[in-house]
Amino acid sequence: MTRQDGPIGVFDSGIGGLTVVRALMDRLPFEDVIYFGDTARVPYGIKSVDTIRRFAGEITRFLLARDVKMLIVACNTMAAVAADVVRGLARDVEVIDVIEAGAQAAVAQSVSRRIGVIGTPTTINSNAYAQRMHALDPGVQVYSSACPLFVPLVEEGWLDHPVTRMTAREYLKPVLAEEVDSLVLGCTHYPLLKPLLKRVAGRGVRLIDSAGTTAELAAERLRAAGLARGDGTPRHRFHVTDVPLRFQTIGERFLGRALGAVEKVHWE
Amino acid sequence: MTRQDGPIGVFDSGIGGLTVVRALMDRLPFEDVIYFGDTARVPYGIKSVDTIRRFAGEITRFLLARDVKMLIVACNTMAAVAADVVRGLARDVEVIDVIEAGAQAAVAQSVSRRIGVIGTPTTINSNAYAQRMHALDPGVQVYSSACPLFVPLVEEGWLDHPVTRMTAREYLKPVLAEEVDSLVLGCTHYPLLKPLLKRVAGRGVRLIDSAGTTAELAAERLRAAGLARGDGTPRHRFHVTDVPLRFQTIGERFLGRALGAVEKVHWE
Repeated sequence: MTRQDGPIGVFDSGIGGLTVVRALMDRLPFEDVIYFGDTARVPYGIKSVDTIRRFAGEITRFLLARDVKMLIVACNTMAAVAADVVRGLARDVEVIDVIEAGAQAAVAQSVSRRIGVIGTPTTINSNAYAQRMHALDPGVQVYSSACPLFVPLVEEGWLDHPVTRMTAREYLKPVLAEEVDSLVLGCTHYPLLKPLLKRVAGRGVRLIDSAGTTAELAAERLRAAGLARGDGTPRHRFHVTDVPLRFQTIGERFLGRALGAVEKVHWE
Repeated sequence: MTRQDGPIGVFDSGIGGLTVVRALMDRLPFEDVIYFGDTARVPYGIKSVDTIRRFAGEITRFLLARDVKMLIVACNTMAAVAADVVRGLARDVEVIDVIEAGAQAAVAQSVSRRIGVIGTPTTINSNAYAQRMHALDPGVQVYSSACPLFVPLVEEGWLDHPVTRMTAREYLKPVLAEEVDSLVLGCTHYPLLKPLLKRVAGRGVRLIDSAGTTAELAAERLRAAGLARGDGTPRHRFHVTDVPLRFQTIGERFLGRALGAVEKVHWE
């Protein structure tokens, strides 16, 4: 097997990262993907930084042992507080994370240079999006808002529900008051709320979805490294640490298609 | 140390069980309490039954090693699917669980014998409340509704918020349509929503809060076994597997007073 034949490893604390896999399937239809979702320990957004860094290291080792040619951190929380752990372990394997991808796209697309970011409390408190955007363009103004209820609302399936609209209006109010022209959806669950958030944010605000931007960045990096596959039938494998209630239903909602066989990982 | 001097061990998947500790402090003011919250792996409500049973066994062993005189399963999910694991390990140590306590109180108090139960999806799907109530009175009619958004709404602190009211109206509608006269709050987070739920349910429905009923049952059992303490200054110890963001704030909201020192448990 040549390096080029290796799969892309994608990981998340749970199933949210399947929105990234969905975008990869569309953007890079010939690539093998191996997904790891730590469903036994989800959600990470409410855990301490030390715990999240330890978990991120364990998952990275699991995927490196499966000869991935690229690692995608499809979890904003891990990208915010543990991207260096992943990069340290990955050595010469390319690493992309959703925050890097979202920050690049936002800075490239914003005209007014006033950018909003929404995410889980851990992601927002880490200030990681603002730091990455400021590194790319010190002149951008970044306004952020933590939206802890969006993940449970998506998992409940209330994607277009009055409760979700009312919640979104409350969460977005402070960011919209700053007249941003772009809004980064800084959580892999949020692409499912895109139609609703678009209506709440209004026409003047462009939504930047980290799933699509991450797939785009992955395509660019594989091409640059000469690691992209141009044909073949891809294999998509899904590993989780637990198979909870409603997993199949919710997983397929995220992936936008049938999930196929899911393998349960036994750590011990 | 005599058996009587041992602490009451209370455990939950996270911090919701602190509502039970709060009720114990009020009802049994001389008893030592040792609390265990598995905050690194919360929430259990979305995990598989096998995983929950394994976790429940680990926590039970941890508390038994600390010479508890009674074990309280202050987590509806564990009570629903792992109470037998806890009782099997506890041997001659008395075990009480929140479902047992809530079911007893509901059957004793309901006049129409039409009882509603709300809880997390795992608790409701386990059918544990209905089974326990039917064992006590085969003639009761039990109507239940899963309310997955209540836990995140409580943790967000939206205890009296329009979003929470709208969500409650939607979740309670099918149960209220059955004209129940009692509604069991089958999750340790829900006592914090009691005022709001009371308004949504209306005057004809009595709310049965599993924290208060569990403390009552504990008092009764300790007295019957001659294990109750009648004086002394109690010690309250709190063990958690992770100290996440906002832990102190949320914990004190549940406990209704200052939390004091919290010890982080290292499993490995």
